[in-house]
Amino acid sequence: MDSGGFYYDMDLDDRKLSEEDLVSLEKKMNELAKTNSAYIRKEMPKAEAVQYFTEKGDEYKLDLLSNLNDGEITFYTQGRFTDLCRGPHIPNTGLIKAIKLTSIAGAYWKGDEKNKMLTRVYGITFPTQKELEEYLLMLEEAKKRDHRKLGKELGIFTMDDDVGPGLPLWLPNGTIIIEELEKLAKETEEDAGYKRVVTPHIAKESMYITSGHLPYYQDSMYPPMELEGQKYYLKAMNCPHHHKIFAAEPKSYKDLPLRLAEYGTCYRYEQSGELFGLMRVRCLHMNDAHIYCTKEQFAQEFKAVNDMYLKYFKIFGIEKYIMRLSLHDPEKLGQKYVDEPELWIETEELVRNVMIDAKIPFVEVKGEGAFYGPKIDVQIWSAIGREFTLATNQVDFAQGRRFKLEFTTPDNNTDIPLIIHRAPLGTHERFIGFLLEHYAGKFPVWLSPLQVKVLPISDKFMDYAKVVASKLKKSGVRVEVDDRNEKIGKKIRDNELHRVPYMLVIGEKEMNESKVSVRRQGKGDLGMKDLDEFINSINEEIRNRTNE
Amino acid sequence: MDSGGFYYDMDLDDRKLSEEDLVSLEKKMNELAKTNSAYIRKEMPKAEAVQYFTEKGDEYKLDLLSNLNDGEITFYTQGRFTDLCRGPHIPNTGLIKAIKLTSIAGAYWKGDEKNKMLTRVYGITFPTQKELEEYLLMLEEAKKRDHRKLGKELGIFTMDDDVGPGLPLWLPNGTIIIEELEKLAKETEEDAGYKRVVTPHIAKESMYITSGHLPYYQDSMYPPMELEGQKYYLKAMNCPHHHKIFAAEPKSYKDLPLRLAEYGTCYRYEQSGELFGLMRVRCLHMNDAHIYCTKEQFAQEFKAVNDMYLKYFKIFGIEKYIMRLSLHDPEKLGQKYVDEPELWIETEELVRNVMIDAKIPFVEVKGEGAFYGPKIDVQIWSAIGREFTLATNQVDFAQGRRFKLEFTTPDNNTDIPLIIHRAPLGTHERFIGFLLEHYAGKFPVWLSPLQVKVLPISDKFMDYAKVVASKLKKSGVRVEVDDRNEKIGKKIRDNELHRVPYMLVIGEKEMNESKVSVRRQGKGDLGMKDLDEFINSINEEIRNRTNE
Repeated sequence: MDSGGFYYDMDLDDRKLSEEDLVSLEKKMNELAKTNSAYIRKEMPKAEAVQYFTEKGDEYKLDLLSNLNDGEITFYTQGRFTDLCRGPHIPNTGLIKAIKLTSIAGAYWKGDEKNKMLTRVYGITFPTQKELEEYLLMLEEAKKRDHRKLGKELGIFTMDDDVGPGLPLWLPNGTIIIEELEKLAKETEEDAGYKRVVTPHIAKESMYITSGHLPYYQDSMYPPMELEGQKYYLKAMNCPHHHKIFAAEPKSYKDLPLRLAEYGTCYRYEQSGELFGLMRVRCLHMNDAHIYCTKEQFAQEFKAVNDMYLKYFKIFGIEKYIMRLSLHDPEKLGQKYVDEPELWIETEELVRNVMIDAKIPFVEVKGEGAFYGPKIDVQIWSAIGREFTLATNQVDFAQGRRFKLEFTTPDNNTDIPLIIHRAPLGTHERFIGFLLEHYAGKFPVWLSPLQVKVLPISDKFMDYAKVVASKLKKSGVRVEVDDRNEKIGKKIRDNELHRVPYMLVIGEKEMNESKVSVRRQGKGDLGMKDLDEFINSINEEIRNRTNE
Repeated sequence: MDSGGFYYDMDLDDRKLSEEDLVSLEKKMNELAKTNSAYIRKEMPKAEAVQYFTEKGDEYKLDLLSNLNDGEITFYTQGRFTDLCRGPHIPNTGLIKAIKLTSIAGAYWKGDEKNKMLTRVYGITFPTQKELEEYLLMLEEAKKRDHRKLGKELGIFTMDDDVGPGLPLWLPNGTIIIEELEKLAKETEEDAGYKRVVTPHIAKESMYITSGHLPYYQDSMYPPMELEGQKYYLKAMNCPHHHKIFAAEPKSYKDLPLRLAEYGTCYRYEQSGELFGLMRVRCLHMNDAHIYCTKEQFAQEFKAVNDMYLKYFKIFGIEKYIMRLSLHDPEKLGQKYVDEPELWIETEELVRNVMIDAKIPFVEVKGEGAFYGPKIDVQIWSAIGREFTLATNQVDFAQGRRFKLEFTTPDNNTDIPLIIHRAPLGTHERFIGFLLEHYAGKFPVWLSPLQVKVLPISDKFMDYAKVVASKLKKSGVRVEVDDRNEKIGKKIRDNELHRVPYMLVIGEKEMNESKVSVRRQGKGDLGMKDLDEFINSINEEIRNRTNE
């Protein structure tokens, strides 16, 4: 393990522990680390363990023990400290070189709000002090880039108690970003031969019994609405609706591959305590699509999806990413995995070959596939090195059968299509959350809610400023005039703070020569340019989705 | 009354009445009409009426009487026929000049499926035979243009039992139309200074108590989902969510007018028996927006909305329309209408003046306003003269207060904004249903799911056909190649049937001279054109949204 986050929960009763105490705690931990004391593991019969904690009067450990079986009880001792612990541990404390206790918080015993609240101390450890410091610096930067903070400052989204937790309302600036992302997805998917569909947000219980969401996914779904003796559910995924569209008309091999795309909005239940800004929500606008294809078409289709991921990474300047090939576990066929051993091996081999041929870095993980087929999980890192789970690219050879999807083969038989589930841009919620951190709110021009602000030096130049803005708007640029009666220095500072990519300063010389003085956010003064020249160059920057 | 649809329900027990019997029934009705027999009205005490029907053994009339009060019972007699009837009636049968019994159907007594099914005969009458015949011709044409039939033939939408009644799934061709309409709306609204937002499809009960939807609109809402001790409802309207966005940040008069637009999807409960194709559904994609403005800004904003309606009518070739100004009823202030007599008179006068100034034909109807303000109801007629209710344009001076919306005035006080609710394109569901009938499925090029089909005369010209298609696609045109091994005559017939606006026939001469032979749906051969010339002209037609 390169690094390890950890926490320790304590029942302090009325004693108090504050952030200030963490420094001395850290000091003590470092002292103990230097003693190079070994972690000694000991197995113990359950009765003996119960006696041990009864004598100590430790109700929490007794509670834990009550759920453990005899024969699986282990203790660890280090120095004078002995505790119930499953392990594993490092061999001795001497390997601990760098520790930081990061925060203190309340935590319900076993995460259940009906239990007592304990005091939790969070910490992190790294093999070297240097790595720890880099990590802390990244955390510091991440705090500045916190998507909830930036989301509020930049008018991206808001939450409201009367709407409900985990249900963001997208403000005008956030909606512009949503629409730019959808435009990108639609153009990309149009080029790649996708067809778009629109489906309702609800369906009857019977559909989710067919799909298997009921009962397997029920805990993640909103509870049903009962209407005319029927139960209706909010959709947690778009696939069943798309399968119904596939099935609406008879299909032949000539119709395949059929690629159905929808920015569908799904609703998933996450516990209130798990919700976090845009990162964990209950309403998900998914960049979804389902590709129905023959086995022969599969490799090319799957590769095309991966290529789409790579194309997007480039557009967004995502330089570090990894794809994880999640496979089945042959020992769990028929239980956790559809009992089709040959189809598993075949599709896994297909996926593996696509990855190798495309020279995409990937790791393989046994026993993490979906129940209906292998999948690629995509992890990306933001500009400051924080990891995000973006999306998955899944193969599915089970849903086709459950929904009785079929197509006529060239020899007039019928066959069941393979289905690829894919969502390269994930959800608007998580992806825009990621982008806020990734860009620190300084969006590239094409994504920026406001692209240009025109700053007249005084009211004398207001008319020309409006002409400039009107010409830019007509060419498709999102532009405003800063018509406040303020000094130019303040106008520049304010708009810099609002992360407007381009500021055009307008004075006497600019007006007389049909020019603009261009300031680029973060880069300062770029000098005077012809207005038409600037209009052309910014439009090209937008069209090319330049990532700056 | 110019014409009158009517129906009559009968309990026929085991006796049968079929469509064939309608002709002789009609004949009899015409004979009776010629007798010029008067309709004689008679008031009757309840007890007497009950005795009358008890003697006749008429359980249905007795059922009706049980819900009527003494003093409000009236009978009508015409010839030998006497019946309970509220009236009014024409003075005598001689005024009946043209009758058509149109159909026969089952109908539950009082529309309740728990009651016995009776036999219902539908009919229609007009002042002249000529008008009746025109109407029947229109019905015949409407049948050919039935949006459910065309919707299936053209791959616009489908319904599915497992999804649920009234919940259309939009197929790829329907989705193209949806996206073109949204593009039009977004461009139009962008030009008109609207800002777009995106809101969830659910909210907590508390929001709908604030808005008054609970309990006043509850019957039209889906039942709640119960989660973590809270009730969540599917939204039936977008307004409360938009109000929350208005309230998310403090507002000053400088922020007004604020125009928030969203193609929000709402869910409304309609009884199963009321559902009808795309015309009456439970899922509504609304061309919605809410304009928050000061009283001073109101007239201009309201006029701008009306202008938007007129702009759309022109684009879609809607030549006949009427706007109805629905007013409050002073006697029902405080009951059906918000008790603000002065504000009512003021806003009604404002709306009236907007209509008069804009020279828009309108009629006034007392007692049909919304509870929060006056509104304009818009009726349009399709190309074959059938009437559709499109949308409403509403003034609202009540919701602002309920949601505690306010803005700072120039003199640093606070005021409540007026709100305009508007949806000029109605819902995708009803508007696309209307357009299917209006255009008979022959959409203008800009709206047509497929815009051009390239028809090579033989495989020899396939390569050039593909070059033609590829150039068109690159220019933004939706195009396909008819690569079937069929005679050109059949290719033309098939694509004519699928209502493809342009067919490009490709043979030897076309290939050698970089030309295309152009056929326009419904107009036949337009002759040979340079490929580039055609590409330019069709793109101009699309850009201008030419309505042909």
